[in-house]
Amino acid sequence: MADEKMKGMEHSEVHYFNSYNHHGIHEEMLKDEVRTRSYMNAIVQNKHLFKDKIVLDVGCGTAILSMFAVKAGAKHVIGVDMSTIIEKAKEIVEVNGMSDKITLLQGKMEEVELPFPEVDIIISEWMGYFLLYESMLDTVLYARDKYLVKNGHGLIFPDKATIFMAGIEDGEYKDEKIGFWDNVYGFDYSPLKHTALTEPLVDTVEIKAVVTDPTAVLTLDLYTCTTADLAFTSPFTLDCRRSDFVHALIAWFDIDFTACHKPIRFSTGPHTKYTHWKQTVFYLREVLTVEQGEQIRGVLENKPNEKNKRDLDVKISYQLETEDVTRQAQGSAEYKMC
Amino acid sequence: MADEKMKGMEHSEVHYFNSYNHHGIHEEMLKDEVRTRSYMNAIVQNKHLFKDKIVLDVGCGTAILSMFAVKAGAKHVIGVDMSTIIEKAKEIVEVNGMSDKITLLQGKMEEVELPFPEVDIIISEWMGYFLLYESMLDTVLYARDKYLVKNGHGLIFPDKATIFMAGIEDGEYKDEKIGFWDNVYGFDYSPLKHTALTEPLVDTVEIKAVVTDPTAVLTLDLYTCTTADLAFTSPFTLDCRRSDFVHALIAWFDIDFTACHKPIRFSTGPHTKYTHWKQTVFYLREVLTVEQGEQIRGVLENKPNEKNKRDLDVKISYQLETEDVTRQAQGSAEYKMC
Repeated sequence: MADEKMKGMEHSEVHYFNSYNHHGIHEEMLKDEVRTRSYMNAIVQNKHLFKDKIVLDVGCGTAILSMFAVKAGAKHVIGVDMSTIIEKAKEIVEVNGMSDKITLLQGKMEEVELPFPEVDIIISEWMGYFLLYESMLDTVLYARDKYLVKNGHGLIFPDKATIFMAGIEDGEYKDEKIGFWDNVYGFDYSPLKHTALTEPLVDTVEIKAVVTDPTAVLTLDLYTCTTADLAFTSPFTLDCRRSDFVHALIAWFDIDFTACHKPIRFSTGPHTKYTHWKQTVFYLREVLTVEQGEQIRGVLENKPNEKNKRDLDVKISYQLETEDVTRQAQGSAEYKMC
Repeated sequence: MADEKMKGMEHSEVHYFNSYNHHGIHEEMLKDEVRTRSYMNAIVQNKHLFKDKIVLDVGCGTAILSMFAVKAGAKHVIGVDMSTIIEKAKEIVEVNGMSDKITLLQGKMEEVELPFPEVDIIISEWMGYFLLYESMLDTVLYARDKYLVKNGHGLIFPDKATIFMAGIEDGEYKDEKIGFWDNVYGFDYSPLKHTALTEPLVDTVEIKAVVTDPTAVLTLDLYTCTTADLAFTSPFTLDCRRSDFVHALIAWFDIDFTACHKPIRFSTGPHTKYTHWKQTVFYLREVLTVEQGEQIRGVLENKPNEKNKRDLDVKISYQLETEDVTRQAQGSAEYKMC
């Protein structure tokens, strides 16, 4: 894995929104071709769905999705974003001659006043690391409940999200990230080792490091899910593909646009192209020594932190199912994404 | 250059301090061996200077420099930092058995009450990108004026900083960073192109990209400089080493510990080992076509932004001195590091 610690992530809500004033994050997202092209294809290839529709773009950023919707024939698009990037978005929409088709509003979804009482389609790129970390899903659900047409024909792009897990061999990098703290220029930095073990790492994982089959641990249907679903407890079973060591469990997500004529899906997993979401790595305290055909069974719990609702508290308990008593292992660990 | 946009940099002071609550930045700084080993050598190899001295560590972070000072024989070290990292620093100092030698205080230098009226030595790693961006130099100077012994024997580690500039050939990457905005999935993103041109880029520059000799544009003597020196206007002359194109001017800095028995210096330039400060790239609007032996003459102006004193306003004017009228060029550009 490349050394890249959850960049741009901070505690305070102040920072959360301020960080979007910097163009670096927008550049990174636009240049994430898996992300942006999937949205482009889902919208622009489905003109039959967008033609003459009222569209709401939740967290519109530079308004790229809003402009895709105009290109797909939307009657009008409303883009909402908290950040001052909306000023740049207005300039961009203007130079592309779409100012009459796109209304951009700066503010909280809960506070802005839309020019339409309801919308036909909600488009949003709301996903955070580990799908749910600093995600805007709650805002999308709020917008759905308040603005999406109630006639059963309202659409959400995307409308399905699935979190997957797998086990990985990661001895060398774990030593670099965790073992490092044992001896820092001759000093004992174990207090930071503890922190390093409890903070999931957002990083790219090579497919060859993956030791188990992946398994889905959460599927969200955006038409029906509620904010209560964002706190979940999910049992999982990981089938070991080969005999190896398991140093960490990883998670990623897939995104579906099922309303498309030809369904569009993209994945942020280790088996496919890089995305800026990378994967999320949860190091285990112990190393599991697994043999092909054995299973790691466990439970993943996730809930928003009570104090800072944008932080996530994650708990993973696991057990290696093996008849070899010398390798039997079980444990549980708590993580905090903050 | 690798694609890495000034990460961890935000506008608000709130964020400035919050960002240090994350261990990622401390890990990155500790793992910056050029930085940390230079400080270690400057302190630990100079026991004759530290023995029985009272030392102040300004912006102590995880207290690594404080612990080096104890190892060098300091009588007592006071570490001051605004960030909650100080809690982790206390744990680290404790597990290393130095709690009786190191006093750690959380707060602003201007507000904390030191257990000693004066100190013999100030140690600090205060440097920001482009030396001065979000740097703590003003805090170090405050500490110097208020706490450093007035008998002329007080020491500052480091005590000298020099900013250098050079011209680089960077056509391919400039196109990727700047030209990108001309056509973003079919849309005109020129409003962000303007921003991209006015925000210096912090990135690693390969030595082979450097077209001119480097030249020093600012030298700070930490014993004598004042905060007024942080706004400066500096003429420069860059001698072209070879015939090539110049797309950008870059800046970096060197740091000196002149009090050491054997003077210690490290550089953050493109000619030497990677540091987390990388180099700072100022793209020019035009491309200069230079020939070996010609000169680029110009003026670099830098001053803290009036509204946000941690932001920097930089202005560069330049002129290619050549007898070839077809290549004569001059211009000036304003940049904002924010």
